[in-house]
Amino acid sequence: MRVATFSIGGERRVGEVDLERGIILPFDLPPSQAEAGIPALIGRREVPARLSPVALERVEIEAPIPRPRRNIFCIGKNYHEHAHEFARSGFDSSAAAGAVPKAPIIFSKVPETVVPSAAPVLIDPAVSSAIDYEAELAVIIGRPGRGIRPEDAFAHVWGYTIVNDVTARDLQGRYSQWLVGKSQDTFCPMGPWAVTREAIDIADTGIRSYVNGDLRQDSNTKLLIFDIPTIIATISAGLTLLPGDVIATGTPAGVGIGFDPPRYLKAGDVVRIEIDGIGVLENRFEEARP
Amino acid sequence: MRVATFSIGGERRVGEVDLERGIILPFDLPPSQAEAGIPALIGRREVPARLSPVALERVEIEAPIPRPRRNIFCIGKNYHEHAHEFARSGFDSSAAAGAVPKAPIIFSKVPETVVPSAAPVLIDPAVSSAIDYEAELAVIIGRPGRGIRPEDAFAHVWGYTIVNDVTARDLQGRYSQWLVGKSQDTFCPMGPWAVTREAIDIADTGIRSYVNGDLRQDSNTKLLIFDIPTIIATISAGLTLLPGDVIATGTPAGVGIGFDPPRYLKAGDVVRIEIDGIGVLENRFEEARP
Repeated sequence: MRVATFSIGGERRVGEVDLERGIILPFDLPPSQAEAGIPALIGRREVPARLSPVALERVEIEAPIPRPRRNIFCIGKNYHEHAHEFARSGFDSSAAAGAVPKAPIIFSKVPETVVPSAAPVLIDPAVSSAIDYEAELAVIIGRPGRGIRPEDAFAHVWGYTIVNDVTARDLQGRYSQWLVGKSQDTFCPMGPWAVTREAIDIADTGIRSYVNGDLRQDSNTKLLIFDIPTIIATISAGLTLLPGDVIATGTPAGVGIGFDPPRYLKAGDVVRIEIDGIGVLENRFEEARP
Repeated sequence: MRVATFSIGGERRVGEVDLERGIILPFDLPPSQAEAGIPALIGRREVPARLSPVALERVEIEAPIPRPRRNIFCIGKNYHEHAHEFARSGFDSSAAAGAVPKAPIIFSKVPETVVPSAAPVLIDPAVSSAIDYEAELAVIIGRPGRGIRPEDAFAHVWGYTIVNDVTARDLQGRYSQWLVGKSQDTFCPMGPWAVTREAIDIADTGIRSYVNGDLRQDSNTKLLIFDIPTIIATISAGLTLLPGDVIATGTPAGVGIGFDPPRYLKAGDVVRIEIDGIGVLENRFEEARP
C-alpha cells in the first residue's frame, strides 16, 4: 500500500495513493489524529475505511510524517563506495577512523528539519557554504521494541519512505559531532509518500539522485554495509525504538563532497531522488531571506 | 523562582517550591497543560495563580520536563580539565581531534532517556560494561530563535536545571557518533527541579558530583570553555531553537573514564549531583531485569 499525508481545503489528511488512477483515497480518521500524518495509522489493528477518492492533482502533498516524534536516526557511511569517496575527500583526517566503519555510525537530525517534496530547502550563505545532498531510504518503525533480534526486525517496520539527508559539510566538520551540520532548518526533505513494508523488496531496490537532471547517485539497497535488520538490532539493543521513529539508512556514492573539487549545492539547484517502488522526492534549493 | 513538576494523587502538576517552608505551591493549570511539566509555564505573559500549598514530602517529584519535545542538545568536552582527562584516557585515538575543542562539540540524547531524581538508572550488562556519570548544568530555552546573537542569548533562556549525562563509554566509541552511547533507556536523570534565569548567577556557580558519597567532580560554571551565550549562538545560527529545548552544557573533570583504571558505575552505586542555587539530583544505578 502507498500512503500519503496531504492537505486539502487547509485540512491535513492521510490516504492511500492509487497512481494508476491518479487518485488518493482519504482514510476516515478524526482530524486530530490525521494531524500526525502516517503515525495516525501505526498501531491500528485494521486500516481505517476509505472515503471518496480525490484527484491527486487537487491535493497538496505533505511529508509522510510532518513532524517526527523525536530526532530522526541516521546511519553514516553505510555504502562501501560512499565510505571510500568520503575518505578520499579528506573530510575526516583521522587515520584511525578508516574508510569503512566496523559498526554503524549513528547520529540524528532534529524533527523540525522535515519538509515535503516540492518545498524549498533553504541555503543560508551566512551559515554554510558547503551544502550537500544525500539520497537515502528511510525506515518507519511500526512496533516498539528493545533488544530486537535481527531475525525479528522486519516485524517492527511499518514501511519505508525517501529522505534527502541534506548536510552542511563545513558545520559537520566544525562541530565534530554531526548533529548541527545535519539539522539546519529545512534540511530533511521527506516523501513524497511512504509504502508499507510488504509493498517493496527492500533488500534489492534501486536508489538514484539527480542534480538539475544530472545523474549523481545510482545504487541499490543490496549494497548497504549494515542492512536494515542489523541497524534495528544495533539501535534497539538498549534504546527502546518507538512507533513513528524514522531511521535514514545512509547514502550511496556520488554526493557533492565526493567530487574533486566538491560540487556543493547553490540556490536554484533541484535535487531529485528516486527509489524504485516508492517514488520521487524533488526539492529546489533557495537562498534563505534574512 | 524554583519550579518543580510533581505528581500527587496520580495527577501531574507544576508548582513553585519554597524550600524554607518545605512546601510546594501548585499553579492553577488545566491538567492537559500540566502534563507537559515546566513547558506549560513557558511563553506565558504571567505566572499562573498559585493554589493551596502542599507539603513537599507529600508529593512525588518528577523530572522538570518529563519528556522534552525533541532530543536534548548536549555539549561535549566543554571544561578544560575534563577535555584533558578525556584525551589522556585514550578514548579518542585521533591526534587530529586535540584535547580542547576549537568549536563546541554538539550531539544529542533521545527525550525518552529522561528520568526524575530518585528514579533508578538501569545498567544492562548485556549491552554495556562501561557506564559513566557526567554532572551538567542544563539550559531550558524559553523563547524561540534563529541566528541569536550572544548578547541576546539570555533573553531566550527560561531557566536552568541539572542533568546527569549518563554515558555508555563502550557504545560511545563503537558507533563513532555519540547518540547511542548517550541515549540508552533511563540515561538522563534530570532535576530535581528548575530555577528561572534571574534566580542564579549562572556565570559563577559551583557544580559537584559524588559517587557513593565520594567527591568526584568539583568545579564551577566559570570554567566552561564555551559559555552559554556562545553555545546558544552556535546552535541557533541556522537551526531554530524552540521553547522547551534543553541544552546540557558539558561536564567538568572527574568522570569515571578519567581514572586509570576507569571507575565505571555498577549496580548499587548512587550518583549525587549538586549545583549551587539549583539543588541536588540523586539516582541509584540498578541492574536492568531481562
